[in-house]
Amino acid sequence: MAPDPADDEQDTMKILLATDCHLGYQEKDPIRGNDSLVTFEEILVLAQKNDVDFVLLGGDLFHDNKPSRKTMHGCLSLLRKYCLGDKPCQVEFLSDPSLNFGHTHFPTVNYEDPNLNIAYPVFSIHGNHDDPAGQGNLCSLDLLNAAGLVNYFGKHESLEKIEVSPLLLQKGETKLALYGLGALRDERLHRLFVHKKVAMLRPKESQEDWFNLFVLHQNRTKHSTTNYIPEQFLDDFIDLVFWGHEHECKITPVWNGIQNFYVTQPGSSVATSLSEGESRAKHVGLLYVKQRNFKLHKLPLTTVRPFYMEDIVLCDTSLNPGDPDIAKNIEIYCAQKVTELLEQAERDRSGNSKQPEKPLIRLRVDYSGGFELFSIQRFGQKFVDRVANPKDMILFHRRRQLNPDHKGSDHVGDTECILDLRPEGLDTARVEDMVKEYFTKADQTKRLNLLSEKGMGEAVKEFVDKEEKDAIWELFKHQLQKTQEHLKMRGTVEEQIDDEVLHFAAERRARNEQQDIEAVLRRVRQNHHDDDNDNDNGAASSDSDTSSVASAVERGTGRVARSRGRGGSSSRARGRGRGRKAAVVEPVAVTTIQQAFNTLRSQRGSRVKSSISYG
Amino acid sequence: MAPDPADDEQDTMKILLATDCHLGYQEKDPIRGNDSLVTFEEILVLAQKNDVDFVLLGGDLFHDNKPSRKTMHGCLSLLRKYCLGDKPCQVEFLSDPSLNFGHTHFPTVNYEDPNLNIAYPVFSIHGNHDDPAGQGNLCSLDLLNAAGLVNYFGKHESLEKIEVSPLLLQKGETKLALYGLGALRDERLHRLFVHKKVAMLRPKESQEDWFNLFVLHQNRTKHSTTNYIPEQFLDDFIDLVFWGHEHECKITPVWNGIQNFYVTQPGSSVATSLSEGESRAKHVGLLYVKQRNFKLHKLPLTTVRPFYMEDIVLCDTSLNPGDPDIAKNIEIYCAQKVTELLEQAERDRSGNSKQPEKPLIRLRVDYSGGFELFSIQRFGQKFVDRVANPKDMILFHRRRQLNPDHKGSDHVGDTECILDLRPEGLDTARVEDMVKEYFTKADQTKRLNLLSEKGMGEAVKEFVDKEEKDAIWELFKHQLQKTQEHLKMRGTVEEQIDDEVLHFAAERRARNEQQDIEAVLRRVRQNHHDDDNDNDNGAASSDSDTSSVASAVERGTGRVARSRGRGGSSSRARGRGRGRKAAVVEPVAVTTIQQAFNTLRSQRGSRVKSSISYG
Repeated sequence: MAPDPADDEQDTMKILLATDCHLGYQEKDPIRGNDSLVTFEEILVLAQKNDVDFVLLGGDLFHDNKPSRKTMHGCLSLLRKYCLGDKPCQVEFLSDPSLNFGHTHFPTVNYEDPNLNIAYPVFSIHGNHDDPAGQGNLCSLDLLNAAGLVNYFGKHESLEKIEVSPLLLQKGETKLALYGLGALRDERLHRLFVHKKVAMLRPKESQEDWFNLFVLHQNRTKHSTTNYIPEQFLDDFIDLVFWGHEHECKITPVWNGIQNFYVTQPGSSVATSLSEGESRAKHVGLLYVKQRNFKLHKLPLTTVRPFYMEDIVLCDTSLNPGDPDIAKNIEIYCAQKVTELLEQAERDRSGNSKQPEKPLIRLRVDYSGGFELFSIQRFGQKFVDRVANPKDMILFHRRRQLNPDHKGSDHVGDTECILDLRPEGLDTARVEDMVKEYFTKADQTKRLNLLSEKGMGEAVKEFVDKEEKDAIWELFKHQLQKTQEHLKMRGTVEEQIDDEVLHFAAERRARNEQQDIEAVLRRVRQNHHDDDNDNDNGAASSDSDTSSVASAVERGTGRVARSRGRGGSSSRARGRGRGRKAAVVEPVAVTTIQQAFNTLRSQRGSRVKSSISYG
Repeated sequence: MAPDPADDEQDTMKILLATDCHLGYQEKDPIRGNDSLVTFEEILVLAQKNDVDFVLLGGDLFHDNKPSRKTMHGCLSLLRKYCLGDKPCQVEFLSDPSLNFGHTHFPTVNYEDPNLNIAYPVFSIHGNHDDPAGQGNLCSLDLLNAAGLVNYFGKHESLEKIEVSPLLLQKGETKLALYGLGALRDERLHRLFVHKKVAMLRPKESQEDWFNLFVLHQNRTKHSTTNYIPEQFLDDFIDLVFWGHEHECKITPVWNGIQNFYVTQPGSSVATSLSEGESRAKHVGLLYVKQRNFKLHKLPLTTVRPFYMEDIVLCDTSLNPGDPDIAKNIEIYCAQKVTELLEQAERDRSGNSKQPEKPLIRLRVDYSGGFELFSIQRFGQKFVDRVANPKDMILFHRRRQLNPDHKGSDHVGDTECILDLRPEGLDTARVEDMVKEYFTKADQTKRLNLLSEKGMGEAVKEFVDKEEKDAIWELFKHQLQKTQEHLKMRGTVEEQIDDEVLHFAAERRARNEQQDIEAVLRRVRQNHHDDDNDNDNGAASSDSDTSSVASAVERGTGRVARSRGRGGSSSRARGRGRGRKAAVVEPVAVTTIQQAFNTLRSQRGSRVKSSISYG
């Protein structure tokens, strides 16, 4: 890179890169409850101190799709405190605002609003945690955008294809084309890429003058064949990829020689799981772009709660499983380890007075070889004053036997050599899989005939992840209606109904029903219903035109929301299910599903999460 | 009033008075869903057109304690669109901001923030629908305040006493002392007034120069002895009372000769019940204050959905209950009435293109005298294209026999002369009463022994009204603990336990337990728990100091939130109840209560509401 991008202020864009701040993570925990906000504040302070041109966030600013009022309040307060000010933003906004911000009521960057003094603009895409959902297909960033505090971009409306229109920004001689793509299901995006349905639009003129930065929020790690986005899917005209969603800090740009671009993965600013990746030092990036060159400085985050992780393999220690006091001795051994880590933490303190004192500690204890376990809870009690997570410091597991030929060759002679991680073992399960497991277990009475396990799994997931109260009911209604239509079409007589329903369900299982299910859930998000095809459509449309705001909210959905008005706005899926009439079959399955869900939830004693590794 | 306050711009404060906008009311109704936002937009347009100095809202800006994202987004967008601009606000803010806005992170009026161009400041107190709740004791107005779009005042932190510190505002020669008191339970405020625990602070100097305006949000109509605020409770130094909460527009100031003040009651800007008061023409007020004189202009709201209500007494018509076609003929008669009202609505249209077309229609049909009913649903079908509420246009009822001596003197000879209103009959019921009724019914198996009906009633109300998921569990835990303490103190032996529990419950019932219950629920709102007195308090406090925002949020509560962290942030009351251990008795009552609640909800097919008349 010839000219040093940090040299010449006037032509150099300075951008703070941060992602996955997960505001509100564990907000009810008396110890860790403020961690996410504390570090978000540090990030905004870093933006000020380094006098950046703008802040770029890679999604998951919020941990919950519907953040609590406390978290939203904290976020609004911090943005207002740090982003407003008299410093003029020197970055010109050149692209068509209706292309970049057509989904908002204020289609321009906030620093061009003459009524707001924006010193440090924030640009953000949404993540999988804070993606659009519910009536109007809005997300939390839409609220921040409406308040004028964030420039939310990278929203996509179509299921069929995606066009990414860059924000064109210029400072002096430097031209930046900023591409953003908010999170969507990895499988879907993977499919869209495979079918060439993702288009990255480019400026018509002097394409070679632009530095192309692409921010996305997807799995980078391969979880299954289609559940991630391979780097080679991304266009090779891109200069730098800013990869959100992955929590491990791998911020130093890595060259992809096949695609000819760099990839930076800043990682989360708060640990949301006690995993190895999260225990690494956390950073944000200070990106300098001058013409087509860039440089990335790592800025360490000094308010992150210290997190130490250590692996202990008991059979590699001097401990003897035959010792009559073995359980007590293992406990002493582990306590010693924790004490060492606490001393380490003391030495490693960042010096920032806002860094929380109590560290997170995780010991992964491999007890294979016939060792006894001790009480995790009692162990935690000893450290309740010194550790942030006394209740889950210890994770017992047994080694998976790597080579079955060696069975019995050492004292790892256990027959059940399954890696039984807990409690993460559950945390990383997927809701939809749990639902499927529930219904397809040995117990035949729980088999679904009218509905499909897959559909229910997706609907329950929607309910859990997005608190979308209508998802289960709508899915049920849709599948019931399709079955009824099928029966009518076949002219089924009464004694054949049971068989025909089973047949239809089997057929549906055989087909790939994913797209069908996704369509229903998408309709729920946009509050469209396919029942109640009564005759008030026309009038409803004319009524819905009564407010400019109202009609703008509907924009892009193509249809006017219809058919509610029986229940109040807060009725629950379950309440609705019962309150409604009309359906031929009583919605017993809904109750069953919810029971299943309650059981799963109480087993886990915690919020059920659905993502594979990053919550 | 000698000088006309409208005369001299320079010395005259011009204030737009509006209240009870109930944003989000019936937001999922495809026809009425946008009504509240449409009229709120009209109110802001009126503020602009009349070039007011500021807008003053009397509470219940939002219908739901936790408004949907769509409603919050609509509100933020409208405020940003209409309240921002270059016009400088000419009203000086003179009082100590820490007294008026000490509860916020930005303790001043928004138009004094140099980073925001506020043309039309909005001041608001909270109502009973949008009052503070949950972690940090925040409400929706706190969010708007943090975003810089509303000046939220009138928040009160203490249960024991209330001090109302006025905002002191000056324009030219006019000095306004603006007192605000956000909604609290009528019974509690009534009690505080009776015990002289409400203090209205007054400026120290030249008290006589100030015009004293007091905005509150309470019952004005007497519902029971203590369930309203009598006007004579209010200080007589007040010049004008702005009464929120009551939905009927009685905006023309009424002189109270005993207290020597005027009272204006603007009424809601959207009808939230099909009652007589809501069917009257709706207005907002343009208040001129010059020195100590004022004048109030009524401004009609022209976007309000037309609402027509008519009483029909069948036995006063020519219809004959003995007619074999009587049901059909009643239906024809009613349809004729509806048609007339629709024609009336057509003639009465405001001319504002944003006024919704389909009116609300309500016929109250008195069928006493042996008349038959017809199907309300079928009737509604005929008007589905022309009426906004086809499903509940008709309300059948029988006349209450006013004078029992006249029994049998005319053909209103029915023995069951009870006014059975529906569905409003249920809508106006109070949650806590329904819970009480459920447990004290004939069925003895449902009697509560360990817990109290009153406590459960209040907790369920909190759950329903504020979506406060922990309320039921916390109340249960509190009452269980108190009972356990009692048993321990008495040294009860096992065979006496049942009797002693009954005895303790009876004692509690005999006492006034209201204050005890309120204390528990208040603690829930502030996320304080009285269990888990474990030894991490000290460290938790030091940890909680790590963020200025975080600590500011806790301000005023006096204690650091403690003791969570077992469940995730989204666990439900029910899930938590089951997930927890420790409790000696299984929380069966919780389940029962929730079943009761579900039953009630499904009976009503709608959101259960708790207020007496204004939902």
